[in-house]
Amino acid sequence: MKTTAEPMDLGQYFGERKKIVDEALDRYLPGESNFPQIIFKAVRYSLFAGGKRIRPILCMAAAEAVGGTLEGVLPVACALELIHTYSLIHDDLPSMDNDDYRRGKPTSHKVFGEAIAVLAGDALLTEAFYLMTKKESAVNVPPSARLEVIHDITKAAGFFGMVGGQVVDVSCQGKEVDLDTLHYIHSHKTGAMIFVSVKSGAVLSGASGRELQALSEYGRDIGLAFQIADDILDIEGNWELLGKETGVDESRGKITFPALIGLEKSRRRARDLVEKAVSAISFFDSKAEPLRRIAEFIIERRS
Amino acid sequence: MKTTAEPMDLGQYFGERKKIVDEALDRYLPGESNFPQIIFKAVRYSLFAGGKRIRPILCMAAAEAVGGTLEGVLPVACALELIHTYSLIHDDLPSMDNDDYRRGKPTSHKVFGEAIAVLAGDALLTEAFYLMTKKESAVNVPPSARLEVIHDITKAAGFFGMVGGQVVDVSCQGKEVDLDTLHYIHSHKTGAMIFVSVKSGAVLSGASGRELQALSEYGRDIGLAFQIADDILDIEGNWELLGKETGVDESRGKITFPALIGLEKSRRRARDLVEKAVSAISFFDSKAEPLRRIAEFIIERRS
Repeated sequence: MKTTAEPMDLGQYFGERKKIVDEALDRYLPGESNFPQIIFKAVRYSLFAGGKRIRPILCMAAAEAVGGTLEGVLPVACALELIHTYSLIHDDLPSMDNDDYRRGKPTSHKVFGEAIAVLAGDALLTEAFYLMTKKESAVNVPPSARLEVIHDITKAAGFFGMVGGQVVDVSCQGKEVDLDTLHYIHSHKTGAMIFVSVKSGAVLSGASGRELQALSEYGRDIGLAFQIADDILDIEGNWELLGKETGVDESRGKITFPALIGLEKSRRRARDLVEKAVSAISFFDSKAEPLRRIAEFIIERRS
Repeated sequence: MKTTAEPMDLGQYFGERKKIVDEALDRYLPGESNFPQIIFKAVRYSLFAGGKRIRPILCMAAAEAVGGTLEGVLPVACALELIHTYSLIHDDLPSMDNDDYRRGKPTSHKVFGEAIAVLAGDALLTEAFYLMTKKESAVNVPPSARLEVIHDITKAAGFFGMVGGQVVDVSCQGKEVDLDTLHYIHSHKTGAMIFVSVKSGAVLSGASGRELQALSEYGRDIGLAFQIADDILDIEGNWELLGKETGVDESRGKITFPALIGLEKSRRRARDLVEKAVSAISFFDSKAEPLRRIAEFIIERRS
């Protein structure tokens, strides 16, 4: 880890962390030779489709910021990616967003059919909890803290988190939506899981009350900034970078931040949130440098 | 609890237990006035559609058989029903079994649309883990035992359990299937969750090694017997009792035990399994009487 005096190379950092996550996911997930093969093929197809691993990387960075180890949080970090991937597969279904491509590749249901795509999502969500409750996972963490973290994750993923956000998103398609509703969708559909990625890494690593409060603030702010940045990318991005049809949100009548408050105001809003997030963790030492840089990456990324 | 000398009234027993489960589910699940309403309506619609609550009742009966309390296992017992209900909603989807009715009522996607049906299933599965990891759940059970039980349940519900069984079932529609494959589908799709319902009640109640082994044997046997009985009912049942189109498995080319080995042999097979299950727990005292009677109910039920 570099000190603040010598700025870290964010590209290298992400590359190294992504490799750790990818290797762990490959190790944790059953191989494609298992029976029934098609479900393992389907799950691995979506899981290794080029995801940036933002959630696991945030979880690990939060752990390190409070003096924890990567090993202590790796199963939970990977479980967060399994939950994220399940949500993408189900979101892409014909009855939901009806997306044919994601990250430049045909979506799960286009390759494996709708039934297997539904089941691949179901399997990934179940496997996330399998992974988090394995005896070998988080061996140095007290079982009660592990239960607490799993509980937090169910809250972020369920009725009052990701599923709730997706329900409102689906229900609002083609309707006029105000800023409050848009904020609800974003904070629940994306924000909650980003928030809990940071929080779980901190809790599993024995964060103090003060650290936890600061990291929660950080997680909430970058969660919303992340989604605003996604909205902006959807307008500005191009196929080459995003691997999906851009501008689709608008054409489908989905409301985005730029559509509601304009592009410039959206950019400022995202920038303000990132500054707030970084300021919340200002009392952390250089071990929190990756968290600071990830916050900036979130609004600077081009894909 | 009655002794063996004075046979228990199974109808009354089921009625009382079902009431306990129904009331607990109603208490645990967020009300329909919560936002976004449609997901709570959808989840409650399927959850309170007349299910027999076999899995929670088995979990509670196993707990009592080893001297445990109902309260100690109630959240996990209810979580098992949430997982069962999620699987029914997803199984009924147009891309899966494409069923319009279940228990005499239109299926979730017929009432709420396909997107909400997918999300209702996702929410129920997530909520099951929410419930099992709540601080107030299983307060007298050591956290490590709670983690172990949740882990067992993920195994029964995931790749090598319920989802795996459904994958093979979906993949085999319209194809010729041998007895081994049919056995795989049944033991994974239904058997695994029945098995873990018994096992989780026992583990949470501090069963001894010998008790656990016997109850595992019992759970495995009645799990398969349950599905064979379902196959038989599908042929013999009628709309009034089952509330769904019977004979559909055959018309859809789904292979069932009666189709493969004949009705009489199927009945004998189910009967043999129940006898084996009851014999496995023969050394238990009268506290296991409900388990013995439930085993018989499984093959005697008319719906």
